[in-house]
Amino acid sequence: MLDRHRKKIWDLVEVARHPEHNQPAFDWYDIFLSVLVVVNVAAVVVETVQEIATAYAEVFKALEIFSVTVFTAEYLVRLWACSADPRYQDGWKGRFRYATSFLSVVDLLAILPFFLGTWFSADMRVLWALRLLRLLRVLKLGRYSTALALMGRVLRLKSNDLIATIFALIVLIVLAASVMYHAEFVAQPDKFSSIPASMWWAVATLTTVGYGDIYPITWVGKLAASVIAILGIGLFALPAGILADGFSELRRMEQASSKKCPHCGESIEG
Amino acid sequence: MLDRHRKKIWDLVEVARHPEHNQPAFDWYDIFLSVLVVVNVAAVVVETVQEIATAYAEVFKALEIFSVTVFTAEYLVRLWACSADPRYQDGWKGRFRYATSFLSVVDLLAILPFFLGTWFSADMRVLWALRLLRLLRVLKLGRYSTALALMGRVLRLKSNDLIATIFALIVLIVLAASVMYHAEFVAQPDKFSSIPASMWWAVATLTTVGYGDIYPITWVGKLAASVIAILGIGLFALPAGILADGFSELRRMEQASSKKCPHCGESIEG
Amino acid sequence: MLDRHRKKIWDLVEVARHPEHNQPAFDWYDIFLSVLVVVNVAAVVVETVQEIATAYAEVFKALEIFSVTVFTAEYLVRLWACSADPRYQDGWKGRFRYATSFLSVVDLLAILPFFLGTWFSADMRVLWALRLLRLLRVLKLGRYSTALALMGRVLRLKSNDLIATIFALIVLIVLAASVMYHAEFVAQPDKFSSIPASMWWAVATLTTVGYGDIYPITWVGKLAASVIAILGIGLFALPAGILADGFSELRRMEQASSKKCPHCGESIEG
Amino acid sequence: MLDRHRKKIWDLVEVARHPEHNQPAFDWYDIFLSVLVVVNVAAVVVETVQEIATAYAEVFKALEIFSVTVFTAEYLVRLWACSADPRYQDGWKGRFRYATSFLSVVDLLAILPFFLGTWFSADMRVLWALRLLRLLRVLKLGRYSTALALMGRVLRLKSNDLIATIFALIVLIVLAASVMYHAEFVAQPDKFSSIPASMWWAVATLTTVGYGDIYPITWVGKLAASVIAILGIGLFALPAGILADGFSELRRMEQASSKKCPHCGESIEG
Repeated sequence: MLDRHRKKIWDLVEVARHPEHNQPAFDWYDIFLSVLVVVNVAAVVVETVQEIATAYAEVFKALEIFSVTVFTAEYLVRLWACSADPRYQDGWKGRFRYATSFLSVVDLLAILPFFLGTWFSADMRVLWALRLLRLLRVLKLGRYSTALALMGRVLRLKSNDLIATIFALIVLIVLAASVMYHAEFVAQPDKFSSIPASMWWAVATLTTVGYGDIYPITWVGKLAASVIAILGIGLFALPAGILADGFSELRRMEQASSKKCPHCGESIEG
Repeated sequence: MLDRHRKKIWDLVEVARHPEHNQPAFDWYDIFLSVLVVVNVAAVVVETVQEIATAYAEVFKALEIFSVTVFTAEYLVRLWACSADPRYQDGWKGRFRYATSFLSVVDLLAILPFFLGTWFSADMRVLWALRLLRLLRVLKLGRYSTALALMGRVLRLKSNDLIATIFALIVLIVLAASVMYHAEFVAQPDKFSSIPASMWWAVATLTTVGYGDIYPITWVGKLAASVIAILGIGLFALPAGILADGFSELRRMEQASSKKCPHCGESIEG
Repeated sequence: MLDRHRKKIWDLVEVARHPEHNQPAFDWYDIFLSVLVVVNVAAVVVETVQEIATAYAEVFKALEIFSVTVFTAEYLVRLWACSADPRYQDGWKGRFRYATSFLSVVDLLAILPFFLGTWFSADMRVLWALRLLRLLRVLKLGRYSTALALMGRVLRLKSNDLIATIFALIVLIVLAASVMYHAEFVAQPDKFSSIPASMWWAVATLTTVGYGDIYPITWVGKLAASVIAILGIGLFALPAGILADGFSELRRMEQASSKKCPHCGESIEG
Repeated sequence: MLDRHRKKIWDLVEVARHPEHNQPAFDWYDIFLSVLVVVNVAAVVVETVQEIATAYAEVFKALEIFSVTVFTAEYLVRLWACSADPRYQDGWKGRFRYATSFLSVVDLLAILPFFLGTWFSADMRVLWALRLLRLLRVLKLGRYSTALALMGRVLRLKSNDLIATIFALIVLIVLAASVMYHAEFVAQPDKFSSIPASMWWAVATLTTVGYGDIYPITWVGKLAASVIAILGIGLFALPAGILADGFSELRRMEQASSKKCPHCGESIEG
């Protein structure tokens, strides 16, 4: 009897969220919790504007208490109902496995700052750090948003290529910073004071941000910077290309699994 | 009798514009209206240069009256002739459906500012806003330009991926701004004064624009900015990759629909 | 007899340059003329440094005379020998068609400034403009370099998509500049003084160059700039994606034309 | 007997590194040498911060001696054992071929600075240059890291397209710099003082870095810069697109070589 209720509740909070299910794209549970998360994030963002924080202190406090209540209730319900899922059925071990899954940890981090904040309320620095943690609530959207879920699958599909690229980027930053340090140190000892300081130049240049707070002024430095920029920028724009390819590959994989030969009707894989 | 005329006029103003028709790429109707739109947009742009606006006030006024006359005539003719189209044949309901289609609304917005302007001519602020609306005439080109139509189809084809990306971008901006606010607030309370203020930094950095009006100066801030930039820029360059993939996918779909097997002559889909 | 010589010379100067020919990638004719072009371009570049121009005036003069002699000789020989090519065989009409082909016009532009310069030597402004024309010699490399030829074919293959994109870019620049002009004019009347002035901001931002000489300072302007940047940058990075796709499509087309089914040995097209 | 040991050692140091082998992704040999290289690079980077260099001088010296000992031992062992590889079996000729392979030269460059440093210890400038050479040790990671190896294969696969692009980039930089030099020289003779000086602008703009130290201020210059930026940026972002395509092509090639027809079970190539 209890198990049937557990199953129903689990279906409500978790199973329906999987994109494979042919469900109405919007249902009240998703919308309510998504809106609540967005309102929460907006509140944390807006609260840092001093005038607004003091003027609406009561509103922010009420919202926080209401949100934590909802999020805590949802967390406990999920923790109780998860054993209805075949993946987490083996008693406490399954429940522990569920509790340590990525999105469950996010759920916990979304409510923890509040309870910790009531304990350490004396130390302002701790409270400040806890406020930052509250922003992690935005990751809860990963559960309700198919868009973020799609992004997550693309990232997982291309993780190898992305790691290879990021690794090469770090090597490039170190080499570029070293070259520029040796080229510009004599002319600008205050800007290119060391290789770590030059790495700030390397990042700003290779990402093409180019704030303009640090740049070469000698001929040798400008020549070296030009070569580094032309060769390196391709590498830095690479992750975007890899991700774009991941999107289209995912699409092809989805199409392939439902493709039929137009003549014999058999399922074929492109 | 009237219906035959209506059909002919509809063919002239609307049907011929569809890219599927094997028509001469340029015909006088397209060219005339495209040039008129371009001249109009150029006039609005150039009119904001004070010296030119006063020197050629008469010319701009004449052009405006001539253009609005033509655009109004075109709008009324289309509204009258649209019932010749099978899609809009069911009397007033069809006509209403046509009038509320995207390009018809653009057509209305292109002439409305003029008529509203004669009513509210007293209020300078309203006139200013109406002048901005006149620029929407550039969207009328979507009717005459196959190039913009192609772009529109690619955007529609990839809308899901693009929404997923833009959603992830907003999440990233909020998180990046919060981290930098906490890292730089003490050192630069005037620049990173709040999370909304830091979001301006996040946008300028993650889009790699980097004006140089706001950037981290502490070690912690520079390190955080480097990590954010390296990881985030890939995401921000992603829409371009998705659109590029959309172009090639559209091309493949067009080719596939006219592809034949080289051996048996049957039509196949790649 | 003359015709046989003509054929041989034509093969030397023109036919061998086509990438389809199984030729040694480097032959003395290519190398000599490529080096001469590169030296010429380097000379024009370096000559603008005043000290070098005065110190080595004689060297630059000698190089110019030598180069123009070679380029003129090559131009005349090509013009004489082109009738050996089946495409240009119909007497003066064919010769004229050859003379007006793109690379022949480049050849003419490469030598014309020298001869014009001796006529208009009095006017410094004309001489300055002619010096710029001399740089067009770099386009002569298109004849000797398979790399530039490959780039040219990709550009031609994707010209439709590229035109659509550039068209959309111009529309976007006009709209973005108008919005920012209305948002920032009151706060910064010297920077966003008119829509054309704001277009400089739009180009600098949407290309993500961001020099930092012009940027929004009001809240409305920053918000509008953020939305414009996030939505618009994808469009501006699009040409690169289209070109990259063109490279891979060209490669596929080349492979497809020489692909065989692994089982029956028949040629198949992917 | 010796040969069997040689074979075993060669398998340990070299063969196992090939990605085709089904090996545990991490083994102690890889990890130890990778960590040593990373620690070395970090030491060179950190040593340029004056305070750290003087405070931990002894630690840096000890690390250097230990690292060079290990790297020298590895180099000699590889040189001795390489004849166990079929590719390098033909006596001294094979050994010489191995010693001049890219990664072997890197191995030599990783230890050479130390031994040269003890000879030229008097000259500070030489020591400085040698310190830079020590950073090349980072390239040793290419042997132990499958990520960098993957990147290397993509670069080799797409080398032709990349060379074509870089060639076109250089042509574009020269032309852009010349146009801007002629447009801005009169207004800003100190910034756009010559074409080489303008090339610094061209690189900063076309790579979209845009430090803000040099930009056009005249109307002609801004217009020219806009056209150059819009047309040129596509070309500069191209290498990233080509590399991304290389990643997906490599993946397809790997999949194709293990693909089977779903109906007859024969191996097919896509």
